[in-house]
Amino acid sequence: MKFLHSTDSDFRAKFTQLVKRSDMDMSGVLPVVSQIIDEVKNGGDEALFAQIAKFDKFSPTSKNDLMIGVGEMSSAYDNLDNSLRLALNLAYERIKSYHERSKPANWTFKDDHGILLGAKYTPVDRAGLYIPGGKAAYPSSLLMNAVPAIVAGVKEIVVCTPAIGGKVNPLLLAAMHLCGIKTAFKIGGASAIAAMAYGTQSVPKVDVITGPGNIYVATAKKLVYGEVNIDMIAGPSEIGIIADESADARHVAIDLLSQAEHDELASSFLITPVEAFGRQVQRYVEDELKTLKREPIASVSMRNKAAIIIAKDMKECVELMNELAVEHLEIATNDALSYLDEIKHAGAIFFGHFTPEAMGDYLAGPNHTLPTGGSARFYSPLGVENFMKRSSIISVSRKGIKELGKACMQLAEAEGLGAHERSIRVRLND
Amino acid sequence: MKFLHSTDSDFRAKFTQLVKRSDMDMSGVLPVVSQIIDEVKNGGDEALFAQIAKFDKFSPTSKNDLMIGVGEMSSAYDNLDNSLRLALNLAYERIKSYHERSKPANWTFKDDHGILLGAKYTPVDRAGLYIPGGKAAYPSSLLMNAVPAIVAGVKEIVVCTPAIGGKVNPLLLAAMHLCGIKTAFKIGGASAIAAMAYGTQSVPKVDVITGPGNIYVATAKKLVYGEVNIDMIAGPSEIGIIADESADARHVAIDLLSQAEHDELASSFLITPVEAFGRQVQRYVEDELKTLKREPIASVSMRNKAAIIIAKDMKECVELMNELAVEHLEIATNDALSYLDEIKHAGAIFFGHFTPEAMGDYLAGPNHTLPTGGSARFYSPLGVENFMKRSSIISVSRKGIKELGKACMQLAEAEGLGAHERSIRVRLND
Repeated sequence: MKFLHSTDSDFRAKFTQLVKRSDMDMSGVLPVVSQIIDEVKNGGDEALFAQIAKFDKFSPTSKNDLMIGVGEMSSAYDNLDNSLRLALNLAYERIKSYHERSKPANWTFKDDHGILLGAKYTPVDRAGLYIPGGKAAYPSSLLMNAVPAIVAGVKEIVVCTPAIGGKVNPLLLAAMHLCGIKTAFKIGGASAIAAMAYGTQSVPKVDVITGPGNIYVATAKKLVYGEVNIDMIAGPSEIGIIADESADARHVAIDLLSQAEHDELASSFLITPVEAFGRQVQRYVEDELKTLKREPIASVSMRNKAAIIIAKDMKECVELMNELAVEHLEIATNDALSYLDEIKHAGAIFFGHFTPEAMGDYLAGPNHTLPTGGSARFYSPLGVENFMKRSSIISVSRKGIKELGKACMQLAEAEGLGAHERSIRVRLND
Repeated sequence: MKFLHSTDSDFRAKFTQLVKRSDMDMSGVLPVVSQIIDEVKNGGDEALFAQIAKFDKFSPTSKNDLMIGVGEMSSAYDNLDNSLRLALNLAYERIKSYHERSKPANWTFKDDHGILLGAKYTPVDRAGLYIPGGKAAYPSSLLMNAVPAIVAGVKEIVVCTPAIGGKVNPLLLAAMHLCGIKTAFKIGGASAIAAMAYGTQSVPKVDVITGPGNIYVATAKKLVYGEVNIDMIAGPSEIGIIADESADARHVAIDLLSQAEHDELASSFLITPVEAFGRQVQRYVEDELKTLKREPIASVSMRNKAAIIIAKDMKECVELMNELAVEHLEIATNDALSYLDEIKHAGAIFFGHFTPEAMGDYLAGPNHTLPTGGSARFYSPLGVENFMKRSSIISVSRKGIKELGKACMQLAEAEGLGAHERSIRVRLND
């Protein structure tokens, strides 16, 4: 784990490397992902079946082989341990309740010229959710992607998940049942993104594709962007923590590790104005690492991707954290909420000593699909609006065109657009 | 102009071609655009200067050569014809007022467990607007891109526009003055997108790039997507009109032509339940075409890209129009607003006999940057939220973690994430 002081002479150089932590280089996988997409686009099911046979160790020959039955989903749900089922239900309800509050509302108003203006929001017809498989087949990912689509009012939700050997994680199946998923396919990686973007005989073409994935999935999402909308291009997960001596150093150490255990490429940053506190956290990290089941992953991540930074004061902590623009930001101080206005760039902000990131990962309510690698500078968390789009509403009155038409004609004329000008002129004398 | 009946036996096949009107094929320009971007990314100003010398017929050698002076902007504004200046001001004010109403608001609430949840919106630090040059250097494009950024509260707005021979359209300069633009560069096409996405010695790196452009610009925006955010990938402009015999056929014909005069690739569709009305519009199109200054463009567009479709009834008109998912949709009937709920996919909807699309292009208030080629199925008009991003807010109370922590730990455990589980456990006894 790096240990930096903001006063070090080489701090800027080292910190810039942390800021630029994710120049996601897709060039290595681009040719193979392009080919996968072209094959599915042109070859449909046949190409798709061949790709699955090659990558996922089972050989579908029909739509039926590809589909996950709703019966499988409901029995997985029924077979859940009772308290786990209750926990999953609680998460579903809390995520739903939060997202319902964020659903955009239609609005209109009439201006002084009698012109009606506004906006209406409509769900997309069909959404495609990609959920990674294998060990990272997280039911929470399904909830976090499906619930905003459900709240948006999307009629048809399509799920794709890789099924190595044809098997799907039972927890994921249970989550599908809970979300009322009717259309789910055993398709992984770039093949799934291609199938949902262009449609095949078995897989319906969708309008929006969301969900996490590795570099192949991210590259495929970028390539099909425009043909469909996507949520964002996401890289490895990350956490930034601002803490002072009012925090429990062991808690902070565990929170750093909770990021590191995700992925060897995950990043964890602590910025604190208190050097002794930083040293303490460093010791607890070593200590706690040993107890982790996922120690092999977490230790690589901590060694290569973690940093503790000692800043001059809280003001500098906030400034540096804004530069990092992290996915998850914890502020572990007694007056955490007082920094709300000063935080400019972060996917989700966790305030206070009782808000470990894990609460947000599962059931606080807000979405856990968040911008990574500094893209919190311009991306938002996944939300209901990813599954809706807006249409502008304009209804000009007779009075309105009489009062504003001339000005409009002048602008059209100035731009040399004669038919635009004439479309107003002919209505002026009506 | 095609003339189709929905009852024709080959209607579905022909209509599907209209629905699939825009398979934007970027493969032809991809190699050259990739190269332009790589050159600027790696070579900075030097590469940029060379590209401008090659494409734009002037040879900058310094940042100063590249920049448009605020003095030029203000004198262009001062030299405007008085009534044109008033028209431009009116447009600015109306666009601003509409967009202010659409600005997203922060929100928070406390749940039953004392957990504070919500969302805050922050402007991006720097936005890059691309405005095409030459004959299509529309001041309205500058207004429509700059005003939402201004309303969002973006501190630094960067404009790029090609300046053939170093000259910028005076109307565009005047619009820049009106919008208070301080940083504008004479850079065109893919070079401009690359410079704003990666930054050069002269051009600052931005967070979001918006604005219209040709296939080179669209391809460049797609390639830099992820490094920065973009508004959308836009193709040729288009209009769809639903009208019945209550509309003036000549007006409808002119509205179709107002789209066709933009671009030889622009599409215009009329769907009407009244055959005689459709025929009348067809005759007026021929008639009005002759009077247009931009007849050479409009006639190609009308010949290749326009269609009049006779539907069974208004219900079918709406259904077909939803399938087309057009950029601009006019409903020219007496009861136009009664179709508001049934319209699902359209960038902007223009209701009634006094709402020619041109009013929306300039000064009704809503944005004229709209999704094209059927992408209204999933994209929204450009808006304030393109220049802002959301951060989730979570602050769990001591009571909250005690009441929900156990359920959260179960989910973490089920996903095999031990540090997640432990980050909650250690706080439970505090």
